[in-house]
Amino acid sequence: MTKPTLAIVGATGAVGSVMRELVSNRVDAWGEIRLIASPRSAGKKLLVRGEEVTVQAIGEDVFEGVDVAHFDLPDEVSAQWVPIAAAKGVIVVDKSNAFRMDPDVPLVVPEANPEQVRNRPKGIIANANCTTLALIPSLAALHRRFGLESMTVASYQAASGAGQEGFDTLYEQIATVAGQTTLGTKAGDVRAALGEKADATFGAPLALNVVPKVGGWKEDGWTSEELKVRNESRKILGLPDLAVSSTCVRVPVAQGHSQAVRASFASDVDVAAAHEVLRDAPGVELVDDPAAGRFPMPIDAAGTEGTYIGRVRASLDFPRSLDFFVVGDNLLKGAALNSAQIAELLLPEFE
Amino acid sequence: MTKPTLAIVGATGAVGSVMRELVSNRVDAWGEIRLIASPRSAGKKLLVRGEEVTVQAIGEDVFEGVDVAHFDLPDEVSAQWVPIAAAKGVIVVDKSNAFRMDPDVPLVVPEANPEQVRNRPKGIIANANCTTLALIPSLAALHRRFGLESMTVASYQAASGAGQEGFDTLYEQIATVAGQTTLGTKAGDVRAALGEKADATFGAPLALNVVPKVGGWKEDGWTSEELKVRNESRKILGLPDLAVSSTCVRVPVAQGHSQAVRASFASDVDVAAAHEVLRDAPGVELVDDPAAGRFPMPIDAAGTEGTYIGRVRASLDFPRSLDFFVVGDNLLKGAALNSAQIAELLLPEFE
Repeated sequence: MTKPTLAIVGATGAVGSVMRELVSNRVDAWGEIRLIASPRSAGKKLLVRGEEVTVQAIGEDVFEGVDVAHFDLPDEVSAQWVPIAAAKGVIVVDKSNAFRMDPDVPLVVPEANPEQVRNRPKGIIANANCTTLALIPSLAALHRRFGLESMTVASYQAASGAGQEGFDTLYEQIATVAGQTTLGTKAGDVRAALGEKADATFGAPLALNVVPKVGGWKEDGWTSEELKVRNESRKILGLPDLAVSSTCVRVPVAQGHSQAVRASFASDVDVAAAHEVLRDAPGVELVDDPAAGRFPMPIDAAGTEGTYIGRVRASLDFPRSLDFFVVGDNLLKGAALNSAQIAELLLPEFE
Repeated sequence: MTKPTLAIVGATGAVGSVMRELVSNRVDAWGEIRLIASPRSAGKKLLVRGEEVTVQAIGEDVFEGVDVAHFDLPDEVSAQWVPIAAAKGVIVVDKSNAFRMDPDVPLVVPEANPEQVRNRPKGIIANANCTTLALIPSLAALHRRFGLESMTVASYQAASGAGQEGFDTLYEQIATVAGQTTLGTKAGDVRAALGEKADATFGAPLALNVVPKVGGWKEDGWTSEELKVRNESRKILGLPDLAVSSTCVRVPVAQGHSQAVRASFASDVDVAAAHEVLRDAPGVELVDDPAAGRFPMPIDAAGTEGTYIGRVRASLDFPRSLDFFVVGDNLLKGAALNSAQIAELLLPEFE
């Protein structure tokens, strides 16, 4: 059999770089690997599987002969090009927000709903938001055992969730405030030190600050990110009535999204039973030993493929409820890794 | 009338420094102001009301003639010295955790329960935890109008919550990681750059990280800080059965504690009604205009006396519930300012 041809669309971005590494190292299952990006990146040579591959400009012709394509592009660019690729018979795994809530597009997290990859009437499979993805592997495992009914989530999201620009902005700002040890004690002094351009990437300075706004403003004071956590969790878990409250906050961390969660269940739940479920859950690493000072943190999750859960507590005042803390790398499980795993679920179709 | 004599015990610490500024600038109501600290700080000269005052070593004699004393000392030192001062007739306003849950000691936040300053059979009035204090002015106002029934809280706590050492540790770590723009992309690289001593203050590195552990470990995986938010809120609001879940997390912010909150009420609630209550609430600044990019943040709260609330939303899936974000300066309303306000409530007793 000929191995299937894979395309990486958006190959030059932060997620695209991680994807090139993943397809080089995870499985030896792909034939040709084509790199595709905007016309201004065409002609660049990038490494895949140890060999240089020339980046091609996006266009109808570059999808000829492609079996599976990873798309990591801005929402509106995905909305334009994904249907064009799909019309040529390409199975598209799309990271954007353009198709996630389309009832004819499955939204897949392999630890939760792998069977959904086959229900793709449009030839499109959507990958979820990075914040949702850090939470789903643990949540799906707990749901299977205890029956999830509601959750309240507060996020601690890394700068690289805003791509390479977010990462660079954080480091620039840290370099500016380093050594200025009176900053942070008076209102306005961090703003004055960083200047007005410090608001450009995150809507406010991020160094020495937290910014309770991730994504764009939607109706009734909610942000797009907060609604994604709610609506995507409902779709992935197959719980259209799941009660969710989410507050999404950017923090001065480079890589790794964290979330504090209180979840309520249909069945009785305790820490020992939750630990038992989580220890065996695919894609989940249980890091929960307070006495030894072990709990999940972004500096330990960065660059790794797992999602981490710890600080698991039985709620003191809410029945059938757990409080816990989860962390996942927003560029790996939160983006490229989940797409890579979805594509690997398709491999039997090419055998 | 002779103006009452005030003592500041723990005058040389981070909170003590803020207290010296507050008593210099807020009200011209105090007679002598005595500065007291540990024996190793005795003899230092510090400014109060523009004049140098010599710090005295703590001991039984230094409380002679004192009417009101602010204590900001470690829990175990307060536990030892507060009763000695109180036995001499001093009214003690204590910032430590030693007496907060004592049924014979009122726990006072002037915006919530000012009348409790008179119920002090031991001559001791307790000041609350810094995290609790950022939340109470808003919460008390909402409770009076809508009847609080439960809340789920996730905190974003500043380094200076751990005193001057916490503040210095954060700035040292930021200086070390500044310019090292590959840090934060791989597990372990921040730890390697900062070295093992980076764990000393917060239990883990704080630069480029969030640490889901504030305070010591208590029973069943909870931290002391998380239990304080629950138990102190119940006592201050007079709601012994209030349902609370709290997750406390340290973030790389110098000054200003933030919290993401979902609160449920006995009465129907909406954003317009909540805004109306919050606009008139004492000690509360409503900063809630998403369209204009206005929401509360630690860099704007630092060094100011208010507590800030914004991102007020009607919960989408939970009845009679609001989601919101609060921020307060942990050294001002979270510590010295609340103590100063309590002491000012006592002034009529000396007229």
